[in-house]
Formats: sequence, structure tokens, C-alpha cells
Amino acid sequence: MEAELRHIYDSVIVRFGGELWIKRPWTRKLYERRLVRNIKNVLKHYDIPYDQIVRRHGRLLLKTGSAVEVAQKLARIFGISSVSPALEVGSSRLEDVVDRSVFFAGHVLKEGNAFAVRCRRVGDHSYSSLDVCRVVGRRILEEFGEKRNLTVDLEGPDVRFGVEVRDDEAFIYSDVVEGVGGMPLGTQPKVAGLLSGGIDSAVACWLVMKRGCPLVPIYFDNTPYTDKSTTERALEVANVLFDWAVGFPGRIYVVAHGENLKEIIENCSRRLTCLLCKRMMYRVAERLAETVGAEGIVTGEAIGEQASQTLANLRVLNQAAQKYPIHRPLLGFDKAETERIARKIGTYETSSRKAKGCTAAPKKPATMATLEEVTQAEKKLEIEKMVEKSFHSSRTLSR
Amino acid sequence: MEAELRHIYDSVIVRFGGELWIKRPWTRKLYERRLVRNIKNVLKHYDIPYDQIVRRHGRLLLKTGSAVEVAQKLARIFGISSVSPALEVGSSRLEDVVDRSVFFAGHVLKEGNAFAVRCRRVGDHSYSSLDVCRVVGRRILEEFGEKRNLTVDLEGPDVRFGVEVRDDEAFIYSDVVEGVGGMPLGTQPKVAGLLSGGIDSAVACWLVMKRGCPLVPIYFDNTPYTDKSTTERALEVANVLFDWAVGFPGRIYVVAHGENLKEIIENCSRRLTCLLCKRMMYRVAERLAETVGAEGIVTGEAIGEQASQTLANLRVLNQAAQKYPIHRPLLGFDKAETERIARKIGTYETSSRKAKGCTAAPKKPATMATLEEVTQAEKKLEIEKMVEKSFHSSRTLSR
Repeated sequence: MEAELRHIYDSVIVRFGGELWIKRPWTRKLYERRLVRNIKNVLKHYDIPYDQIVRRHGRLLLKTGSAVEVAQKLARIFGISSVSPALEVGSSRLEDVVDRSVFFAGHVLKEGNAFAVRCRRVGDHSYSSLDVCRVVGRRILEEFGEKRNLTVDLEGPDVRFGVEVRDDEAFIYSDVVEGVGGMPLGTQPKVAGLLSGGIDSAVACWLVMKRGCPLVPIYFDNTPYTDKSTTERALEVANVLFDWAVGFPGRIYVVAHGENLKEIIENCSRRLTCLLCKRMMYRVAERLAETVGAEGIVTGEAIGEQASQTLANLRVLNQAAQKYPIHRPLLGFDKAETERIARKIGTYETSSRKAKGCTAAPKKPATMATLEEVTQAEKKLEIEKMVEKSFHSSRTLSR
Repeated sequence: MEAELRHIYDSVIVRFGGELWIKRPWTRKLYERRLVRNIKNVLKHYDIPYDQIVRRHGRLLLKTGSAVEVAQKLARIFGISSVSPALEVGSSRLEDVVDRSVFFAGHVLKEGNAFAVRCRRVGDHSYSSLDVCRVVGRRILEEFGEKRNLTVDLEGPDVRFGVEVRDDEAFIYSDVVEGVGGMPLGTQPKVAGLLSGGIDSAVACWLVMKRGCPLVPIYFDNTPYTDKSTTERALEVANVLFDWAVGFPGRIYVVAHGENLKEIIENCSRRLTCLLCKRMMYRVAERLAETVGAEGIVTGEAIGEQASQTLANLRVLNQAAQKYPIHRPLLGFDKAETERIARKIGTYETSSRKAKGCTAAPKKPATMATLEEVTQAEKKLEIEKMVEKSFHSSRTLSR
């Protein structure tokens, strides 16, 4: 039955998030255009054929013979709240709507199913939405009710038919695939993301992408305190994130950071190593953000998740970034919540793969460092020179 | 049966989040102590009697005759992942464990139920966990199997019995109440929170509380651009947040901000009003954070949610806070996700109540302001004087 259904669909209904509707018309149009462009890029990338994409009354309608494949891909595009493979009626005459609905129902309903019909109508018609529900429901029962032992259940049906009537066209569907939500990628400026390859940073980067920001990932290569396994993991995680950004550059910046760490370890108190390391990362990230035209820096820090991430330490870290805000979308997350998102977006498996942990991390890191002791410690380092050297060491890898 | 069960319980098992276990022993002990103190405060506040709280093998055990009430309250304490009203066995001899389990099952199992038994064992015993499951299961079937038409279903049972054996004691339970998670309140420094009374800022404040930071809420009173309805709403929302922080001061700072807004409107381009207003709020919040010993400032901004919250504008806003990080836990949230949390924590209803919106907001706010134009505009204002005046205007209201 499933395979048969696949060939009946000829369209996909694409729904936006509610947030788009509170934007001003001009902004909304811009967002819609960007979304259409992103959709086209994804379908082209995966080589899925379609005829056209039309904007209609707060929906996108996509004509395609591969509706199920299209729906699956579209559910992973930022800015889409849900999609439904659908069957076009070709007119909005009540008889036609009812006939096609019954035809569709015949392919969907199985022995013993309980079903419900819902209708949404936009435009002038000689009938109401309720008329559609009533007549379609009755006709389905007449046609298949006894043969398949069907019942109507408006509360908790097995199958829920949706009928959308819009001016002179109508669509029928039964499946609503939940989309990923958010805002179309590219409707916000770029963000530079500190991507370690671990669980947190990947989720943090994804969350700002979800809100529309194209990501410029930066990986700090701590060799010899880490090794190739750590770098490879980060590059793989970046590739998973790039899958969410088809049509955007899949390019990661790799910065040599091991020598900075060596300087820090040799010259400063060991309990400050992680803080000094991170402050250096922020500084290099600021230089890169400037170069690539990003408007902020995103990191995977959550309050209290690690010793370096106490609230007091976050304050000390922040003071190292003077030009760009440090965005920390995981601030209020529990680890379990972050892991749940990592699973959903596909980074969890790679991120939890064993890689060499940073051997520069001290046994007793400072949890309540003061800005004063950190700036004192940094006086023993040639900060600017180190930043410039790292910045110029950066190379880009494209997938 | 439910009411009867209530009187059988004599204990509550309290489980911590997994995150506590990756902390070093010293930190963990500190966190546990704080959690116990928070629990005591809540039970005292709600006048719920209990005998004692004991730390045991990564659990807290609470002896009380009001186990159901205690469990309900504890589920809302930060740092607790789940709780179970339970029945103490009084020994860890297998016969005793089995007898009490069968007694307990007799009160829980209803006609036609499918059940399962799970056991967790810590310590040296002459039997294994599996032995417990087998014997308890068999004895329950012997006793009630035919009479009540019971079956065993390890995959999807109606009732899941948990048996915890720890050294020379044992507990039996069937209910696991999900806790709110996070870290015990007070294990991180204070945070100053910009609380408008709307949906977003309340959720943002709650999220940092969840991670252990006591909240110092600050409300900016924009009268005459808002009115009493706006202020009252904010105070009510603050009270809902204080309910999550029993034992901590329930005090909100109210700052007169209307005159600042007036100056901004009269002297600067209207499209910048919201940005200039917010930058002023950050500055006053920094002064207050310093006074109360907070380590950061939390706001409800999410990327792109409002015109003032584009990534470019967040960068411009950030530059106004020089000493404290601006924490934005909602950065990556969709509005629908924020609303879901608001419902869960109890702020949604009050936050969505109609209050006078700020009439100072311009029709066409800047979405891509530059730091240059904003600092130019601020030259027309006596920033420092305004900040000091607002700071000194602040009064505290205690619930």
C-alpha cells in the first residue's frame, strides 16, 4: 500500500514556522525567497526532480513526482515547520474535492482503521470547511466503511485526512512530517563557530545555523597535545553540519594552536591553562571573524558543565573577546538535553567516538579565576604575536 | 487504591542528574550539601513533615510519612533528575525483600495488569539482582496472578516495580516522577536578569537558575511608555520564578527607565530607539550586578526573534556591556520552544496576559545598525549621568 501511495502523490505542501508571520511583509518576502532558494539547492544537490515551487497563502506548493523523497529532504531545511506529500485535486469544485478524497482514502485506509477529516479553506466557495469534512467522511464510509470495517474517530484517529482548499485549487494529504523549524539559513549574517568535534560545540553551531546564520567553523589543532584522531573527528562533524547547509560553502578553518598551548604551559600557572587556552582561541576567532565577515562567535559552553565553564570563568573568558559577542546557545542546557539534539542532528555518533583528549588539561583547573590573575599570567606571554602567528597559520579545508 | 498506596509509602528515593557524577569528589560533595539544604528549605516552606535525609551511594533517601507530597515538591528542585515514593524493607535479607515486594504489589496491581520487576543492587549479598527479579515476579504471580488476571511483560508493562538493595537496606517503588534536572541552585554565582515580564525573559532567567545561578531580577519601568499593567505583570512573573528558588531572597530591582527613553527619543534617530534603550539597560544592569555581586547578566534575546535581535544588532548591543558577559540562553530557540518551557515552568499564562506594550518602539526599527552610528547617536546623550540616575532610582520589592 505504501509503495502504491508513493505514486499517487503529485505535490508537497510546505508550511513555515509561526515566527515568520510576525515579520513585516518586506522581511517575510525576503525570508521566503531565501527559503525557496535553499529548497532548490537541496533538491538539485540530491538530484530529486520537481516541476515548480509556488508561493500561496502562507504555504509553498511543490509539484513533483517524487513527493515522498522531497518531503523527507525538506523536513531538514531550516525555516520549514512541516511538510506533507499531497494529491492535487485540480479544481475546487466540491464534487471534485470529494471524488479525489475518496480515491485517496481508498489507497490509505486499511482494515479496521479509525479516521477523521479536517479541512482548511481560503477564498470564496459555495460550501464551508465543515461541509467538506461531512461529505468526504460520509462518502468514504459509503465506499469503504463496511468492506474495511472503518470507523470515524475525531479525537484519536489512525488516519487523519487533511483537505486544503485555496481559491480554485485543492490538495489532499494524510501525512504531516515535522520539520526542523528555525529560520531559513542565510537570513542572518555569518557566525564563526569554535568546533572541537565534541558533542557540545557541534550542537551549539547547529543551533545558530537553525536561527539562520551560515556557519564558519574553526577548529583549533592542539597537536601535540591531541593528535590526528581529534582532528579527523572534528572534520567529520563539520561535514555533518555542512549537510544541513546545502548551497553554502562547506569550508572549515584549521588553526595551529599547539605552540600557543606550549607557551601557556611553560610560562603560566597550570591551573589557568584551560582559561588561557580558550582566551587565545577567542582572540584568533575574532581575527578570523573579521576576515570572513562574521558577526559573532559561537561556542559550546554551558554554565557549570566543565571546570572552565563556571559562571565566574565565563566572565573571565569573555573579557578576551573585545570586538565580537561570544554566543553560547547551550548556556542553560543540561548535558542530556544537548545529547538529545546531537542525536537528532546526526553528530552524536561521530562526536562520541574516542579521540585523543587534550593532554594539556591540568588535573586541578581553576573554577573561580579572577580577571586579575589571568591578565597577570598573560603578561608572561607575547599575546599579540601568538595571535598573529596562529591567525596566519590557519588553512581552510573544503569538503 | 491510590489513596491506600499513599499511606504505605514511608520513604522517597531522590536521584541526581548524570552530570553530577563527572564532577570531582570535592565539588560533588559541595553540590550534594547544597541540594540537601535546598530540599530542607522547600519542605519547611511547604510545611511537609519528614524525619531525615540520608546520602547513600549516589542517592538521597528521605524518610517521611508524606512521601507523595514530598515527591511532588522535590521534582521541582533543580539538580534532581527523578524521585520515587518508596517503601522501606528494613533489611536486605532476600525473604524480607520478597515479602515486602509482594505486599507492595498487592496494593499496586489492578485487574488485568502486565508487570515487570527490576532490581538494582549495591553491596555484598548472597543473591544476585536477577534472583530478586525472578523470585519477586514468581511470588507475585503465585499470590495474585490468577485472582487478578496478571501477566509479566518486560518490554511494555503497565506497572514496573523497582527494587533497590543497598548494603543492609532495601526499598521498593513503582512510580518514577521525572525531576526538572539542572544543578542545585546556589552552586554557581548570582546572575542579574533583565526581566520584562514577557515570555522570553522569564524563560531565559529560569534556564540560568536551572544551571545553579541564583537570580537577581531587574525590571526596567518604562512609564509613561508603558503603565502599571506592565509592571504588575513583571512582578507576578518574578514571583513565579521565586517559587523555584525557595530559601533564596525573593527580591526584584525596579529601575526608572522612562526618562532615559524620553531623552533617547528626543535626541536620537527613531530607528535606533530600541537599541539605545537596551544598551542603557545593559549599563544600568552592570552597575547593579556589581552592587549585588552577580557574575553575569542574562537576557531573553533570541537570534532574529525581533528586529532588535538580529545578529548584527546583538553585536552592537554587546559593546555596551564592558564588564559583564551578556548571557542569552534562548539564542538558538524557536519561539515555540520557548513557549513550551514557559508553560512547563508556570510563567506562560501571566507572561501572555495583555499588558501595555512599549509605545516608544518605532515603526521601522534598525535591523542592521552599525556600532558607529549608535555611538554617534549616543554622543547626543549624557550617558553616564543617565546611568547613574537610573541606578540610584532603583528600589527593591520583596515578595
